[in-house]
Amino acid sequence: MRVALLAHELFPDRAKTAVGVLRYADHEVAAVLDRTRAGERVADHLPEVQDAPIVAGIDDVDEPLDALIVGIAPIGGGFDESWRPDVAGALERGCDVFAGLHYFLGDDEEFAALAEANDCRLWDVRRPPDDLTVAEGRADEVAADVVLTVGTDCSTGKMTTTMELAASARERGIDAAVVPTGQTGILIEGWGIAVDRTVSDFTAGAVEQMVRERGDDHDLLVVEGQGAITHPAYSAVTCGILHGAMPDALVLCHEAGREAVHGYESFPIPDPSQHVALYEDLAAPVAAASVAGGSLNTSHIADDAAAQAAVSAFGDAIDAPATDPVRFGTDTVLDAIR
Amino acid sequence: MRVALLAHELFPDRAKTAVGVLRYADHEVAAVLDRTRAGERVADHLPEVQDAPIVAGIDDVDEPLDALIVGIAPIGGGFDESWRPDVAGALERGCDVFAGLHYFLGDDEEFAALAEANDCRLWDVRRPPDDLTVAEGRADEVAADVVLTVGTDCSTGKMTTTMELAASARERGIDAAVVPTGQTGILIEGWGIAVDRTVSDFTAGAVEQMVRERGDDHDLLVVEGQGAITHPAYSAVTCGILHGAMPDALVLCHEAGREAVHGYESFPIPDPSQHVALYEDLAAPVAAASVAGGSLNTSHIADDAAAQAAVSAFGDAIDAPATDPVRFGTDTVLDAIR
Repeated sequence: MRVALLAHELFPDRAKTAVGVLRYADHEVAAVLDRTRAGERVADHLPEVQDAPIVAGIDDVDEPLDALIVGIAPIGGGFDESWRPDVAGALERGCDVFAGLHYFLGDDEEFAALAEANDCRLWDVRRPPDDLTVAEGRADEVAADVVLTVGTDCSTGKMTTTMELAASARERGIDAAVVPTGQTGILIEGWGIAVDRTVSDFTAGAVEQMVRERGDDHDLLVVEGQGAITHPAYSAVTCGILHGAMPDALVLCHEAGREAVHGYESFPIPDPSQHVALYEDLAAPVAAASVAGGSLNTSHIADDAAAQAAVSAFGDAIDAPATDPVRFGTDTVLDAIR
Repeated sequence: MRVALLAHELFPDRAKTAVGVLRYADHEVAAVLDRTRAGERVADHLPEVQDAPIVAGIDDVDEPLDALIVGIAPIGGGFDESWRPDVAGALERGCDVFAGLHYFLGDDEEFAALAEANDCRLWDVRRPPDDLTVAEGRADEVAADVVLTVGTDCSTGKMTTTMELAASARERGIDAAVVPTGQTGILIEGWGIAVDRTVSDFTAGAVEQMVRERGDDHDLLVVEGQGAITHPAYSAVTCGILHGAMPDALVLCHEAGREAVHGYESFPIPDPSQHVALYEDLAAPVAAASVAGGSLNTSHIADDAAAQAAVSAFGDAIDAPATDPVRFGTDTVLDAIR
């Protein structure tokens, strides 16, 4: 697919989805739409991902174009009316439009009519499918090894670790696939269920459905985790993913130096070792799984030696091989889970 | 309120909601509708709850009547078309209709029109409110002590224990209220949120909202738990309630002799002591709470002495005072949590 990424006014630092697609998706990116940076290039900001021009609007993107992906999610997940000409323009050109907003483009009368008239797909990836149901406790029947990324908090690198592990496994010749559970992962992979939007009773069932759908076609599934089992607000989603995926192994993701739950600063984050015990004890009654590796986000540590020391200390704390997958690759962790 | 309870063909053994309302609700029950038992009385079957006539249909219920409560939930939660004349008849009489079905009566064109024409309330208690959001981690700010019932499985007596604890506390002069989280509890109490139907991300938030709404008006809140933290399908809901309620104490509910997860027979139920550790370890990072008491459902043990022995053994296993609240009252557990 050849895609354009809408990221007005937020590229690249606050355009997590757009950057994720640039870095990990199997799409050719025709352009990034950011009216404040028109004329610049992706490579000016992110030299390590595929390059593309940055343009002011959809009319500046050349053919052929298969899809426009909304690559930003403002606080609250609303739709910014300034994006309307781009979305409408894409549909008028016959492009599909994919978005991970709380506001569903498919419920917008203008967009729905344009999509129908031009035979395009409007895919709101956060809208759960209609056929979800409760888990049966059968995800462990699949042929693939199943690895789940878990965290000590939100935004500790679970999505990144998931993508890096799968990519490294494929480089080794292992048939690995990602099971995406959040909007960025879904937009990168082109399928998946936003598990935090399902009916609560179907949380585990949604993950089980995905694992069973893909688990016999691959040797390794890496399931993208969400939240943290110790999180005051999001632990339900984390718990449902843990029990629905019935993983063989866990990879614990932590951010170096983070001591309090992001946005819930009065809640200290328990030690990583305490997270290991909690995740393993909670997994065991449904499907035993141990924390086989650790992933430490050291992006706030400037010095490589200090980052390596932090990774080593993290590995010691959780008694498992650790890495920063972006900085030091995933070999040590991949060795541990395979 | 004076209410009628629809329980066609299922009263009393498979009419959990109707029996719950008869036993615990603060309503006068005018009649039970069960066409297969018309002419009998509630007291013929349940001598320990309020008596009422059993009638064939809504037209046999005398005035005044405030509400019809659908007191059964068939497998799948569908609406049985044979109930239509009763629901329509109630609305035509100006009665409210409350139901805990998956099928929402408010989405039924005939019922919606009748409710509007007769100025009645159609309350589908499983439909979550529109204003739910993520938890803030603030449920522990309320003035009331908060006790949560937790379980080793579904259907271990959490709803019953919740109701019995609150009733016993009130008998002692404690201003106690129930926070209902499932359809039967909601229909008994007349308010509440069916937590298993919320968006997964809002599970904890829904419980927090309820605790904060009522927690400053009472001395004791007893929060009705759901599922089990070890359940292959429903643990997400359990986890969200645990972290959303931020309880001061837990009461662990178990059924004597049950060894496998109901409906998931390949999953053994871990020992009650293991549940104590799991619930306490999982609660601690958000709000420390210990299992202060145990509730054992001994209804399948005929002999009182054997039941008492089972309760004692359960108390020893969890290292906390235990009872069967229906058989032996709640004094020992109430002493432990207050």
